[in-house]
Amino acid sequence: MMFWNQEIETLERGKLEQLQLQRLNKTLLQAANAPFYKDKLTDSAGRPVQLKSLEELAGLPFTEKKDLRAGFPYGHLATPRRDVVRVHVSSGTTGVPTAVYHTQSDLDNWTDLVARCLYMAGMRADDIFQNMIGYGLFTGGLGLHYGAERLGAMVIPSGVGNTSRQLSLIRQFAVSAVHVIPSYALKLLDSLREMKLDPRDLGLRLLIVGAEPYTEEARQRIEHSYGAFACNSYGLSEVNGPGVAFECPHKNGMHLWEDNYILEVINPETLEPVADGQQGELVLTTLCRQAMPLIRYRTRDLCTVLPGPCACGRTHRRISRIAGRTDDMFIIKGVNVYPMQVEATLMGFKEVGNDYVIVLTNDGPVDYMTVRVEIAERYRTMDSETMAKLSQRLGRALRDELLVSTRVELLPPESIPAVVGKAVRVDDRRKH
Amino acid sequence: MMFWNQEIETLERGKLEQLQLQRLNKTLLQAANAPFYKDKLTDSAGRPVQLKSLEELAGLPFTEKKDLRAGFPYGHLATPRRDVVRVHVSSGTTGVPTAVYHTQSDLDNWTDLVARCLYMAGMRADDIFQNMIGYGLFTGGLGLHYGAERLGAMVIPSGVGNTSRQLSLIRQFAVSAVHVIPSYALKLLDSLREMKLDPRDLGLRLLIVGAEPYTEEARQRIEHSYGAFACNSYGLSEVNGPGVAFECPHKNGMHLWEDNYILEVINPETLEPVADGQQGELVLTTLCRQAMPLIRYRTRDLCTVLPGPCACGRTHRRISRIAGRTDDMFIIKGVNVYPMQVEATLMGFKEVGNDYVIVLTNDGPVDYMTVRVEIAERYRTMDSETMAKLSQRLGRALRDELLVSTRVELLPPESIPAVVGKAVRVDDRRKH
Ligand SMILES: [Zn+2]
Ligand SMILES: [Zn+2]
Repeated sequence: MMFWNQEIETLERGKLEQLQLQRLNKTLLQAANAPFYKDKLTDSAGRPVQLKSLEELAGLPFTEKKDLRAGFPYGHLATPRRDVVRVHVSSGTTGVPTAVYHTQSDLDNWTDLVARCLYMAGMRADDIFQNMIGYGLFTGGLGLHYGAERLGAMVIPSGVGNTSRQLSLIRQFAVSAVHVIPSYALKLLDSLREMKLDPRDLGLRLLIVGAEPYTEEARQRIEHSYGAFACNSYGLSEVNGPGVAFECPHKNGMHLWEDNYILEVINPETLEPVADGQQGELVLTTLCRQAMPLIRYRTRDLCTVLPGPCACGRTHRRISRIAGRTDDMFIIKGVNVYPMQVEATLMGFKEVGNDYVIVLTNDGPVDYMTVRVEIAERYRTMDSETMAKLSQRLGRALRDELLVSTRVELLPPESIPAVVGKAVRVDDRRKH
Repeated sequence: MMFWNQEIETLERGKLEQLQLQRLNKTLLQAANAPFYKDKLTDSAGRPVQLKSLEELAGLPFTEKKDLRAGFPYGHLATPRRDVVRVHVSSGTTGVPTAVYHTQSDLDNWTDLVARCLYMAGMRADDIFQNMIGYGLFTGGLGLHYGAERLGAMVIPSGVGNTSRQLSLIRQFAVSAVHVIPSYALKLLDSLREMKLDPRDLGLRLLIVGAEPYTEEARQRIEHSYGAFACNSYGLSEVNGPGVAFECPHKNGMHLWEDNYILEVINPETLEPVADGQQGELVLTTLCRQAMPLIRYRTRDLCTVLPGPCACGRTHRRISRIAGRTDDMFIIKGVNVYPMQVEATLMGFKEVGNDYVIVLTNDGPVDYMTVRVEIAERYRTMDSETMAKLSQRLGRALRDELLVSTRVELLPPESIPAVVGKAVRVDDRRKH
């Protein structure tokens, strides 16, 4: 068996789009129960908005993160509160949190989607799976946990932190698959080296890598170091969490489950659709959610729809890995820069280690960008002349990629402290 | 509806015991699949051990924590590994961890038991429930989480830590029920006072209080401060986690679910059964577990079986709150002392605050016990003469209870730092 749900995963495009339209109209009716959508999804005669074709979706308004904030706590809830069995609340770094609601049916559906992803990535009931990611309000932990249990794998809910314990568990239980954020997968390599362990001896077969964007270069490092498939996972809590799009073993982009989501890619400035193959902001409409349907939700994630069919036989379209988040973008000397561009350049150099941070400073109106990056362990003893040359080469490569001049500071291996949770890539110290 | 499962909860004792015997014999067959039990549950002729009466259980050997350690990782697993969907691993403070396995059926059953407990405590589908307890390998978080979702409550998986966020969530969502460890429920009172909030204004109706032993005096403080039912919850990860025994609103002990467990109370020295009403060590035999049945597991928890029926109509017997753990007991000047005895004495004084620690020191062969205890906020300005007298009164009360002389040090309110997770009650600094 190659598929978790062969019928849905390989559904002929015409039928898939028919299913989408039918579920979209059901979703529009359901969404209209939420205060936020009530007026937006009712026409001037008081009738619910229903669409005759998928193309008509482009006529409906977008939903944005700021709408979720403004509607907190119950503005987007489309079911009675007593039907809700789970709430995930964003950490609200900006002060105002957002809430995402789930009925039991929503959880069942989300769980099934995650199981479908894990099965596609190659996980089976006889896998031993360590979920090395935060539980609780963060959707990454509970989302993968439920999906892996549904699949029937043996789940070790190890959560975040305590690296030596994580490694002990992997070895004691002969773990075959882990879920990990990319920066932690790289940081673990340092710990393994200190313990004089070869990462390949862990025997991992599969790393599910998600929760923060990372580059193809970082993936190749992870795969090469662990000798395992590092599978790219995509999701966001507003439309569930993990399980939105996932790689198949052909590793040519992530299948986005179009029976559950309608995908659009737009130019974030003009809000017009971009052509397949062109980068833009991913916009998602949920098709199966009861408690909190979202119509044309702007994810702020930048990606490309990849053209052509996939050799695996799944008909759901593929998106590229996330090239950055519009939120993460910073402007320096008038140029838009994404941390992922910096990472891709750095990780292309074998002399570069596993962690970096971008520091932005200013002297009056003049901004400066400094990339502080660890050198790789096996280059620890590099002489100062070679280091100076490497700095120059990195600086030139970054300037060519970003079109901004950049200072590069080389640091000894493991000098950037490990963080619990997502890595902090940009340290903006500018005062204007 | 008063019951989650009326038939089972009110099953006539004769039928309940019939069900127990039938499930026990099934469990003995299942347990014999585990390497640890294989020989123990097979007679000399190679036939599986089967019992004719519940009384015969007393003839089978005990299972102890040290057996679980010795059998790590798979010595107690009674199903094929591929049928396991969850593993909880103890933190292994002693160096050797223990593992507890669950099949999907085990999880369903555990989840249903927790839902039964919560329903009994008064939780319903329209409750908003904040699970302020650790997720991941610790069973308290996921156990209550699954049960509350099954019940249909709206679950906010807030996890541990970040007190100001916990309080924000309670207020933003008008939370009606929380799950919390007793020491944290008391610590929260300090934070609320600092924020000039009356704990009663939170509007909590129910606090599920578990994961560490606490006294009736502490419970009354919690109930009085929050103006809510503080429901005593008991469980241990070896036989699932939470959901083993729980209070009904009559608050006269915890109903232990005898359709899932056979309970015995023994003298931990002689290993002989004690009479109902006498304190001893709780011993549990699981009746519904597939992956890891345990026969006569010594919990190390001290309690009493309470005589007589409960007015709620449930036929499952009640145990007293846990008076202490044989593990927590310490010996000073030849006397056995449980931290719970100290807590019960301290919490009986209105001048005493919400936290304490027992410090053990020695001068050569002579041991000393000092109880460091916070005074209550409203006595902050107590004069030194009154303090000296209070110390003396507390010292006398402790000596009367423990039969050991104790020094008492009064500390200002909130001077003992809050810990994430279980409170550390004994600081043994003795060097022998
Ligand atoms: Zn594919
Ligand atoms: Zn009762």
